[in-house]
Amino acid sequence: MSPVYLDNNATTATDAEVIAAMLPWFTERYGNPSSSHAFGATAAEGVRLARRQVQSLLGAAHDHEVVFTSGGTESNNTAILSALDSQPGRTEIVTTAVEHPAVLALAAHLEKTRGVTVHTVGVDGEGRLDLDDFERALGPRTALVSIMWANNETGTLFPVAALARQAHAAGALFHTDAVQAVGRVPMRLRDTEIDMLSLSGHKLHGPKGIGALYVRKGVPFRPLMRGGRQERGRRGGTENVPGIVGLGAAADLAARYLETERGWIEDLRDRLEQGVLSRIGHCHVLGDLDHRLANTACIAFDYVDADALLLMLDRAGIAASSGSACASGTMEPSHVLRAMRVPVGAIRGAIRFSLSRDTGGADIDRVLDVLPDIVGRLRTQSPLWRDRVPTFA
Amino acid sequence: MSPVYLDNNATTATDAEVIAAMLPWFTERYGNPSSSHAFGATAAEGVRLARRQVQSLLGAAHDHEVVFTSGGTESNNTAILSALDSQPGRTEIVTTAVEHPAVLALAAHLEKTRGVTVHTVGVDGEGRLDLDDFERALGPRTALVSIMWANNETGTLFPVAALARQAHAAGALFHTDAVQAVGRVPMRLRDTEIDMLSLSGHKLHGPKGIGALYVRKGVPFRPLMRGGRQERGRRGGTENVPGIVGLGAAADLAARYLETERGWIEDLRDRLEQGVLSRIGHCHVLGDLDHRLANTACIAFDYVDADALLLMLDRAGIAASSGSACASGTMEPSHVLRAMRVPVGAIRGAIRFSLSRDTGGADIDRVLDVLPDIVGRLRTQSPLWRDRVPTFA
Ligand SMILES: Cc1ncc(COP(=O)(O)O)c(C=O)c1O
Ligand SMILES: Cc1ncc(COP(=O)(O)O)c(C=O)c1O
Repeated sequence: MSPVYLDNNATTATDAEVIAAMLPWFTERYGNPSSSHAFGATAAEGVRLARRQVQSLLGAAHDHEVVFTSGGTESNNTAILSALDSQPGRTEIVTTAVEHPAVLALAAHLEKTRGVTVHTVGVDGEGRLDLDDFERALGPRTALVSIMWANNETGTLFPVAALARQAHAAGALFHTDAVQAVGRVPMRLRDTEIDMLSLSGHKLHGPKGIGALYVRKGVPFRPLMRGGRQERGRRGGTENVPGIVGLGAAADLAARYLETERGWIEDLRDRLEQGVLSRIGHCHVLGDLDHRLANTACIAFDYVDADALLLMLDRAGIAASSGSACASGTMEPSHVLRAMRVPVGAIRGAIRFSLSRDTGGADIDRVLDVLPDIVGRLRTQSPLWRDRVPTFA
Repeated sequence: MSPVYLDNNATTATDAEVIAAMLPWFTERYGNPSSSHAFGATAAEGVRLARRQVQSLLGAAHDHEVVFTSGGTESNNTAILSALDSQPGRTEIVTTAVEHPAVLALAAHLEKTRGVTVHTVGVDGEGRLDLDDFERALGPRTALVSIMWANNETGTLFPVAALARQAHAAGALFHTDAVQAVGRVPMRLRDTEIDMLSLSGHKLHGPKGIGALYVRKGVPFRPLMRGGRQERGRRGGTENVPGIVGLGAAADLAARYLETERGWIEDLRDRLEQGVLSRIGHCHVLGDLDHRLANTACIAFDYVDADALLLMLDRAGIAASSGSACASGTMEPSHVLRAMRVPVGAIRGAIRFSLSRDTGGADIDRVLDVLPDIVGRLRTQSPLWRDRVPTFA
């Protein structure tokens, strides 16, 4: 039986079409785009096309608003540091309690080492932003508002276009970590006031180790990495040509399939959730059910330990996750669910299933087949289950 | 006729064995190494093996001294910023006038924005370091000495092991940009005092977009990119698993072929140089002829414009370069040759041929076939040639 992969928010399989697009750039088209000879010109042309493909997926006005990076983390770090360095009078950042560590870890570091003030806006029980709190956090010293487009754990979508307008009204720049949204949510950045946007190839069936930072034309910018004049001086280092071409191909695929696949991915996800809720008692779907990614189901199972559950699912050939993959191994309860004030008992048993265009109905059936039994077995081992201590008050 | 690629210091073709090693990590083994399920464990195992392969090529004592990055530029930037941030009392950097922009551009930026003092040690006419100047530059406030192992334009090798000892005697850390040396020069870092070393996959027949920073155990370190706990907290961001596996495979190949291939690459290079010198008058081989990479020939043709020469070579299907690829397009004369005080006339006509294990005798013959005629034609168009104004005084 082939394994069931429902951890597409951690990473996706690289599409066969993407791999095929990349291959010639490892072999005969291996030139350095900065070289003046034919090999270099060919490589530069590959990068140029890929930049247009990413531009097109984002609905950006200019292809040179796309700066290629090594991934979402680099894009986020670049955006935050750039906004601070290019606006010396502004030393505050506004962000949310549910951002990815690629924002929060840097923000905490800057707070400690550079005297940056970080306003961390909270969310409600469904993971929705506290808009009053947000309003209050903005001020004349705000350099940057950095708010994710879609949350990686619950799939909750934030109203980034409106938030960008509010940030601008306060004279601040607006960045969005759209690593989970790009390729899953239609975008037309040219119609928004978003200044910077992060994306990562491996979350949209592109390769790992490549990403991009959208930087709106005219937005002040400081590079994170200095060296050669690549990316118009905005990111030093020989371009990862095969990766860039692969990201371009992935963007192209996403643009083609976005509207159609969203529908059936959502149907599969809903079938999964409804199947779980109807077969298993004492469980809850977390997040903003009206505004979330089509592919993400975050389900809390009371009286169950998520790590034990994941282990048993893994043994049954099903890959899912608790919290974000990069925080796993730390054994800390999800900061996202804590910010939502999900009761500790429910956080302990929360699992994320994340689908993709590679997911089929048979995958969902497999989960619905084995999950009730696994949850049942784990619960019989739990003293809390015996006493049925209520999780949600 | 297949093109002749003699620009391997700009980038190398990815070895077929490397591509084969990478492919499964795009398809069935696409997991995120941080994930706790089987897909994640498989990916983590791939990264673990690759780290050992790089460790082995470097002769490092511990595999976890290898931190994977996106390339040479990121490694250099990380090393420099880390050394400054982790030693607050030390605010000076010692480097050389012939480093790559990935060192010099950052150093200049830090000088301007952070009050860092940069001592730029000069070189002599053969590109050899001025050791008295170096000695004088070291002081109690030196945070880092950053000196390349091999120069990308001339191939000149620096005595990094000895320089590292001197840096330590002054209480400073020692970093070497070994992007051009790794895979071309045998190394046993465990027997040296080198604290940090940069390498880049695409210079040793590995993929672009991947590199590593060696950080000796115990050396203070601060990450450039913050996010997840990847690379033991030293580099946030989902690991570029196929790239890392590819770099590992490239390291393995280099380790296997290093000693044998150096010999015949050097023979080919010498044949090229001697052939050029015997067929074409008024040209000079630049660099430290006794201490240089086996693969690099930097030849200055008097009374010729390098860009015109490269263009005609390109039309003849031969790829070579002037200066470093990442500086090309800037039209500035090479900072390396200027630091060597090569006369302007000779810099204007300086070309770099860089070989690799993919180079064959037929490639050299092609160059020797067409070059005399091309140089001759260009010279007849030059007024300086008519007057034979001497280049070297
Ligand atoms: C000596 C040296 N250092 C650093 C680099 C930068 O490496 P990368 O372009 O992989 O970032 C290069 C090559 O471009 C180089 O030749
Ligand atoms: C919301 C979000 N932001 C940023 C990242 C970091 O992206 P990468 O791991 O590609 O650096 C991730 C994924 O890990 C993510 O889910």
